[in-house]
Amino acid sequence: MQGRKLTNGFMLSRVGVKGVKKPVQVNRGDRTVTLICTIDVFVDLPSDQKGSHLSRNLEVISDVVDQCLSAPVSGLEDLAATISVNLLKRHEYATYSESIITAEYFLERTVPSGRKTMESYKLMAMAVDRQGNGLKKMIGVEIIGMTACPCAMETVRDLQKGNLRNRDEFVPNITHNQRNVTTILMEVPENFTVEANDLIEIAEKSFSSPTFEILKRAEEAQVVILAHENPKFVEDVVRANLTRILEKYGDLPDDTTVTVRSESQESIHKHNAFAERVTTLGELKGND
Amino acid sequence: MQGRKLTNGFMLSRVGVKGVKKPVQVNRGDRTVTLICTIDVFVDLPSDQKGSHLSRNLEVISDVVDQCLSAPVSGLEDLAATISVNLLKRHEYATYSESIITAEYFLERTVPSGRKTMESYKLMAMAVDRQGNGLKKMIGVEIIGMTACPCAMETVRDLQKGNLRNRDEFVPNITHNQRNVTTILMEVPENFTVEANDLIEIAEKSFSSPTFEILKRAEEAQVVILAHENPKFVEDVVRANLTRILEKYGDLPDDTTVTVRSESQESIHKHNAFAERVTTLGELKGND
Amino acid sequence: MQGRKLTNGFMLSRVGVKGVKKPVQVNRGDRTVTLICTIDVFVDLPSDQKGSHLSRNLEVISDVVDQCLSAPVSGLEDLAATISVNLLKRHEYATYSESIITAEYFLERTVPSGRKTMESYKLMAMAVDRQGNGLKKMIGVEIIGMTACPCAMETVRDLQKGNLRNRDEFVPNITHNQRNVTTILMEVPENFTVEANDLIEIAEKSFSSPTFEILKRAEEAQVVILAHENPKFVEDVVRANLTRILEKYGDLPDDTTVTVRSESQESIHKHNAFAERVTTLGELKGND
Amino acid sequence: MQGRKLTNGFMLSRVGVKGVKKPVQVNRGDRTVTLICTIDVFVDLPSDQKGSHLSRNLEVISDVVDQCLSAPVSGLEDLAATISVNLLKRHEYATYSESIITAEYFLERTVPSGRKTMESYKLMAMAVDRQGNGLKKMIGVEIIGMTACPCAMETVRDLQKGNLRNRDEFVPNITHNQRNVTTILMEVPENFTVEANDLIEIAEKSFSSPTFEILKRAEEAQVVILAHENPKFVEDVVRANLTRILEKYGDLPDDTTVTVRSESQESIHKHNAFAERVTTLGELKGND
Repeated sequence: MQGRKLTNGFMLSRVGVKGVKKPVQVNRGDRTVTLICTIDVFVDLPSDQKGSHLSRNLEVISDVVDQCLSAPVSGLEDLAATISVNLLKRHEYATYSESIITAEYFLERTVPSGRKTMESYKLMAMAVDRQGNGLKKMIGVEIIGMTACPCAMETVRDLQKGNLRNRDEFVPNITHNQRNVTTILMEVPENFTVEANDLIEIAEKSFSSPTFEILKRAEEAQVVILAHENPKFVEDVVRANLTRILEKYGDLPDDTTVTVRSESQESIHKHNAFAERVTTLGELKGND
Repeated sequence: MQGRKLTNGFMLSRVGVKGVKKPVQVNRGDRTVTLICTIDVFVDLPSDQKGSHLSRNLEVISDVVDQCLSAPVSGLEDLAATISVNLLKRHEYATYSESIITAEYFLERTVPSGRKTMESYKLMAMAVDRQGNGLKKMIGVEIIGMTACPCAMETVRDLQKGNLRNRDEFVPNITHNQRNVTTILMEVPENFTVEANDLIEIAEKSFSSPTFEILKRAEEAQVVILAHENPKFVEDVVRANLTRILEKYGDLPDDTTVTVRSESQESIHKHNAFAERVTTLGELKGND
Repeated sequence: MQGRKLTNGFMLSRVGVKGVKKPVQVNRGDRTVTLICTIDVFVDLPSDQKGSHLSRNLEVISDVVDQCLSAPVSGLEDLAATISVNLLKRHEYATYSESIITAEYFLERTVPSGRKTMESYKLMAMAVDRQGNGLKKMIGVEIIGMTACPCAMETVRDLQKGNLRNRDEFVPNITHNQRNVTTILMEVPENFTVEANDLIEIAEKSFSSPTFEILKRAEEAQVVILAHENPKFVEDVVRANLTRILEKYGDLPDDTTVTVRSESQESIHKHNAFAERVTTLGELKGND
Repeated sequence: MQGRKLTNGFMLSRVGVKGVKKPVQVNRGDRTVTLICTIDVFVDLPSDQKGSHLSRNLEVISDVVDQCLSAPVSGLEDLAATISVNLLKRHEYATYSESIITAEYFLERTVPSGRKTMESYKLMAMAVDRQGNGLKKMIGVEIIGMTACPCAMETVRDLQKGNLRNRDEFVPNITHNQRNVTTILMEVPENFTVEANDLIEIAEKSFSSPTFEILKRAEEAQVVILAHENPKFVEDVVRANLTRILEKYGDLPDDTTVTVRSESQESIHKHNAFAERVTTLGELKGND
């Protein structure tokens, strides 16, 4: 029935399925990890066809994921790319395909004192295939960190000037600090590699401080001191990420797209503060 | 501190606040209703300025919402527009402003038997102001309805042909049906009006059947029969909405943007089916 | 069909509907406010009856809410109580009824500098009616505030002793602080009144500092200083609430149930800290 | 600081951390699977102690999860139990400990046509340890399935009696059907085993039909027909689960607690239908 011809239909931009859950085997350096993925896939639909064959989407996902059992993919963006390419093959009427994958992810980190911990992150990957127009892959990460407000720190210091004279240089002052969620989404151009682990490292260096699952007393103080020595607005966090992305990926093509978002769950407000840059490496190189 | 000059900064696309909650007085025909709004607002930030003055965003929202107490706005898109215009005024460094508002909404409907009920919906409004480039307003609705699958209905009928010969004309056959969430987001060009109530009516006519809070036994059967007499894929739901939007708003300018989305919480799967069209009235008039 | 007799059924503890949305008129002192309520209602079902008449639940809700148009209730717990009583009347087979209502709520507050703002909260109400065993009403609030960690503050001070000698008395030291969500749920015994506004005031006084929608620079500093002068664990927040509840409601019967929960969205961790007390006023009076 | 003595404190029922994420190795028959777990843990706190040592909670979780690398647990309830036991050991002041674990889970199923698919579920586990009062373990599952309404089916048939005479026996009539989420939470008494896989099988047999990720046309019709041959209210779903639980676990002690919940995302309404039984095997054996 989906294949039936329509005479007065409209084309549809995206038709597909959302929220398909799959365990996927992924190669991370020397080990294979299992990622529990949530997958959305779409293709376009011409105006003269009644419906898209949705079951084919599930078959494509299932086939591609099964292949990972014998040959684990090296990254979720490659998995997304393979799914998108196969979506176009299976939906012969489609000229556009899109797949979006998200998954929880874990990485070993080192707390300021040198102890190892396991921290949790979110991975995102996306691939768009346009018939005759090439494949575009994206890899992304969502990272939780900490921001300390530089403005309140300065205002508090000003208010306490009488008490605090001559101490400005060495006493980082009190301020509000909070949980921040930063997202980096970056295109992976053909013949180039962008490692999610590197994006996580970039993001964690761009907070006032990264956060950790277990902190003993002295380590907790170290994190607090680090955050107060690096007070940052959400705007600063986004810019610090952009600077590091430019340093790390300056060799990638100018039209490589980059999105950085940072959202602070303000401790002094009930709402969140937010900053975002949607750009290309070329624009960033132009120092804009 | 936010106003400080930077020499090697990057411009930021959007800086602002998310999740501000406000009760707003809105004029709906002859009565004033209270909408509990969740509001996000953003402006851009030039590369040479350290931070955006976030507290100004809250002041703008608060001022504009307070004005509604004495002069209720006629629609959320007008509220969003006023906020966006004032954001640009208050952030003198900004060239772009954006505001997004969502709210629960209630409307009296009539069940097939003629009884009145109160049904719940979600309203969305958005306004973008670009310095020297005009203001763009959007109004949107999110509506819950019901879809019955035409494909399974046909397959079941084929399977039961022996039993059901000669009855095809008058017996709508069994199929899976489910809760569907449809979203319409439409630009409101200057000097034109797009009523959220009309969009809700368009969406409810485009399901297999609308849904209702209270259904007595016979009414429940009527809804079930109506849905089975109008079996629809998510693709069909989106196209039915596009057809009605074109009929109702054919007089609006060709560049008026329209997005229609439909997501079915499939009763036979654990995942959802999804269809979307992002377009303009001009493209729709071209029957594409 | 629901009324049919079963011979080998099981009784069911709760059967009903969840997520019914309704605008409700409520009397708050001298004004009538509209609350957008989400309502769940349940009754029990005897083992020998096939089904509960779910449409009656919707009729009860609708009737009771409609009555609020002419005679607004004074509190959501009264609305919940009226619904629960009517549920038992309409479901003649039921011996237990329960209704739960939640709603966004707004209240004028005063920032430390004396300026007025409008802050958002969540209200909860619950009523259980047991045939022949009386009606029990609960009112609750969910409030966002700020906590500053006393332990990290002390550790930082210890680490910096060399630098900070003699300053301990007047310099609150840096620490991590964060958004905290506190919930109070309290029984309202017959012939007594518990005002949601009072519970909000109790909770806001029990944080390190309340939070505000709009803060000008100096006000932001005042909030930060206040929070650092009142460093609190989640444990401290719960106990501070219990102390104030006991002061305010010591005259209520000993078997009045009270639950206080506090959850801090830790700025130095990706997980939350949590503390809870489920108790009665009698136990609290016994200083346990 | 947490260990400091208080003179007028209140005891706290539960103090701990929520939302800790961990990959865990679990033995499922002949293979080891990775479950991405979200973990909440709590202990009580005496009235004379200022705070609970929250970092110990993280150390306990981390230690116990690390042990799974060399010796995978056989079930999440055993993991929860080991965590709860160790929480009491590490918090020497505590008399109560509680741990709650949830995880996505996948299982191979067979569609009506005999083809194999991989379906997704949610696991839950819980363990409470009371000093001197023994350990209590719970295992639970959350399963998505399909319900078809028996009442609307009958009403439709009655309405169409003229047309449908003599066909009642073999034509299941049209009705509304929808996605249903059923939860079973069951105690695992000492020396007994309750397999999550068995609970999933019980739940899937208790729907009108289980649901599947991939369904080819004929299989889709089979699922639709199966659902219409087994029309069920949420009440029926809960009772069918209770019946199967009693059959399977009748040998377990009478005081074994069982909770079954079923929630239907009604296709004809915007709200959900819900039924629940909280009980013990003993009560069920008494046919109540």
